[in-house]
Amino acid sequence: MRAAALPVNYGRIGVRDNSGLEDMQDDIKTALTAFRNSIDNLDAAMIYLMAERFKLTQKVGEFKRDHDLPPADPAREQKQIARLRTLAQQSHLDPDFAERLLRFVIDEVIHNHQRIRKA
Amino acid sequence: MRAAALPVNYGRIGVRDNSGLEDMQDDIKTALTAFRNSIDNLDAAMIYLMAERFKLTQKVGEFKRDHDLPPADPAREQKQIARLRTLAQQSHLDPDFAERLLRFVIDEVIHNHQRIRKA
Repeated sequence: MRAAALPVNYGRIGVRDNSGLEDMQDDIKTALTAFRNSIDNLDAAMIYLMAERFKLTQKVGEFKRDHDLPPADPAREQKQIARLRTLAQQSHLDPDFAERLLRFVIDEVIHNHQRIRKA
Repeated sequence: MRAAALPVNYGRIGVRDNSGLEDMQDDIKTALTAFRNSIDNLDAAMIYLMAERFKLTQKVGEFKRDHDLPPADPAREQKQIARLRTLAQQSHLDPDFAERLLRFVIDEVIHNHQRIRKA
């Protein structure tokens, strides 16, 4: 069976990525490109989701500044971590990774809130 | 105007979080709880999305092991970073954050691929 033709135009968003695969057999290349296409779709969703999340936390930051509330809220964070660890278990994601991911995002949010406060 | 009643049951997934807000005015509490509810919804979406992404990269890891391909692929990563930075700009997310987020996720993937290879 002949492998499906691979898209090769790299110049635009949404274009399919087979970079680094030039020397592989066609069937291996095709399989890996299919995986990458799906990963790229999920990553686009992740970016749009994060864009919305940071719009919300930007508003929260301004709200906290206006009402003189502290940027960080350890009690809230503990609830978030526990909840996301449970969701991770249910969806078969490593709960430790879920916790580190949330920590990574929250650290950025707190950094932004501190910046809003100083502005 | 009387503030809307706040949900107070913390024990289950999906329950609304007003922890740390006990001493606030009702209207401030209500506004902050509304923000948190939306953030919690986006975070649940993020976890499910990541669960699917890691299912895919798990398969890619096994595929790479079976075909003796290296766990990391710098050329692919450069394409991913450039694409996500552009998507971040389009959706008004900080491109530097988008790049650091992808790096964070890819590092976990590479770590998992190395583990698959040793198993």
